[in-house]
Amino acid sequence: MNSDPRPVLLSGIKPTGELHIGNYFGAMRQLVDLSKSDEHDCYIMVADYHALNFIQNAQNMRELSLDLATAYMAVGLDPAHLTIFKQSDVPAHTELAWIFESITTMPYLMRAHAFKDAEAKNHEISVGTFNYPLLMAADILLYDTFVVPVGQDQKQHVEYARDTAEKFNRLFCTGITSRTNSPFNPNEYLKLHEVPKDEVFTVLPIPLIMPEVAIVPGTDGQKMSKSYGNTIPLFASREVITERIMSIVTDSSGERPENVYAIHRLLKSEDELVPLYEEHKGKYKALKDALIADLEEFIAPMRERYLELKNNPDVVIKALHEGAKKANLKAESKMSTVRRAVGVV
Amino acid sequence: MNSDPRPVLLSGIKPTGELHIGNYFGAMRQLVDLSKSDEHDCYIMVADYHALNFIQNAQNMRELSLDLATAYMAVGLDPAHLTIFKQSDVPAHTELAWIFESITTMPYLMRAHAFKDAEAKNHEISVGTFNYPLLMAADILLYDTFVVPVGQDQKQHVEYARDTAEKFNRLFCTGITSRTNSPFNPNEYLKLHEVPKDEVFTVLPIPLIMPEVAIVPGTDGQKMSKSYGNTIPLFASREVITERIMSIVTDSSGERPENVYAIHRLLKSEDELVPLYEEHKGKYKALKDALIADLEEFIAPMRERYLELKNNPDVVIKALHEGAKKANLKAESKMSTVRRAVGVV
Repeated sequence: MNSDPRPVLLSGIKPTGELHIGNYFGAMRQLVDLSKSDEHDCYIMVADYHALNFIQNAQNMRELSLDLATAYMAVGLDPAHLTIFKQSDVPAHTELAWIFESITTMPYLMRAHAFKDAEAKNHEISVGTFNYPLLMAADILLYDTFVVPVGQDQKQHVEYARDTAEKFNRLFCTGITSRTNSPFNPNEYLKLHEVPKDEVFTVLPIPLIMPEVAIVPGTDGQKMSKSYGNTIPLFASREVITERIMSIVTDSSGERPENVYAIHRLLKSEDELVPLYEEHKGKYKALKDALIADLEEFIAPMRERYLELKNNPDVVIKALHEGAKKANLKAESKMSTVRRAVGVV
Repeated sequence: MNSDPRPVLLSGIKPTGELHIGNYFGAMRQLVDLSKSDEHDCYIMVADYHALNFIQNAQNMRELSLDLATAYMAVGLDPAHLTIFKQSDVPAHTELAWIFESITTMPYLMRAHAFKDAEAKNHEISVGTFNYPLLMAADILLYDTFVVPVGQDQKQHVEYARDTAEKFNRLFCTGITSRTNSPFNPNEYLKLHEVPKDEVFTVLPIPLIMPEVAIVPGTDGQKMSKSYGNTIPLFASREVITERIMSIVTDSSGERPENVYAIHRLLKSEDELVPLYEEHKGKYKALKDALIADLEEFIAPMRERYLELKNNPDVVIKALHEGAKKANLKAESKMSTVRRAVGVV
């Protein structure tokens, strides 16, 4: 069925609201590069059923999901060369997650770091947050995924997927098809539904830890983050770029305005920047203007593609529909083996 | 879509292995009576995805599931007048369960009696056992079920389904469709996907507590149960009936052989039995023979239907396929509203 011989890469991305250049340099760029290298058969999943644990408003969910797909396509993910789809369009994800829930013990799942961290902060976390690693295992294993690009904090979840695959194989893929001791009359129906002799999850996934591009600094020098209000939106207009850069508080004590330089460094090499900052030493306005110009040059082409797609949402919706079709085909093929292995068909 | 005006009754039955007359008098008979009363639109579900928590062998799962449907049809459930289907044939069950997991808190679910009981016995219970009430809530709510026949021990699960329905309605069915504050351009795509103004789960289920037909006694006077080895199989041959009844240890100290009488009492009224036991006072062999004859008379017609169906499994498989089609239609119609309400379409 799957004639693509390349290893499968799957990346699940959660809608989180307005993207900023911190998201881009932190993860999006690497994913685009990976997809362009053509070494993997890429599945990019808008993880809306994961997001349901924290987005509980239909309009937000709908807009954020569509916007996320739009943004990723704008920065270079090309639906012609990969599969981009919404998790909720492929019912096999939650079905396989349930099967995994049946073979996973409570104490094992409670050892997940993310669960312990979340529970430490808020005792009232959702059952979905607790079960998150099992839905993620289903996401990964449905597609025979080999490579899962993740941050360091998600590494354990890929290990959970590996463990779960191995446990499933151990439990259900014994290779024993004999039913000689059974009082049941073997008939045509059953012959069609032999337990597969091979393992079901033959590919065990590995995490591809994204190199933390240092920490992307915000306009105040702290890590760029929506919660600090120090971001530069990924598709910012020239006006917004100008306003954000002009708002940077420069520290006149240093050699150069570090908060300006740190952002500039994302766009240009040290070799390019050192002469510039030397030339305009002390002239913070001139340096900010140079950064604004460089940011505008960097952002403009992505912003144009983004706005074009925003004005033609049908293009994105069509890509998601096509992606869902492809993803469903592959997922259903795996599920038909899984269902035979557990004996529900 | 659903033109049947009768309230929906849903019963989920788990494959557990060989059925005995204790199962029949404890629950099956009442369900058959309910289905024959024609007051409800009945959905009878073979709960294989619930069973996966304890049946982790494909061949057992396959045979026990088919056998359960066969047994229920043999004792009088008529697929021409109700919907009998396998849970795993309707992917909406696990999808809706996931949605419920997202809106349910851990402490709330941990208060479930069944979870506490299971955990007290075995700390290593599965995540699926913990999530059981949410899959059951999905089972119930997908069909706008009004009546759920359950034993006293399952009453709380129906309350969980009610609570979950109300919580979902509260979270997602505000009736607010305005999106005036949104920066997103409302287009045709979104207009097709308005948040429903009405509540999604308009029918709140009630438990129908099955009157405990006292406790069905086994051949040793204790409750009839596979684990006590004191059962009379529901479709027992005359030989097995004879063997089991003859093995009853009679207590010569009493007025009458109580262990014989207790089983006899399931089949005949006190008015019929008193003269018989008076006539054969002390003649245990004669009383056992009478019980054997009455059991054979009671079991024989069901056993014949059962064997006929076992020899023609296609009849049962076809009923399950037809049932799955009907169940999927109804479940998918509900899911399309649910998906719109949470915003994944």
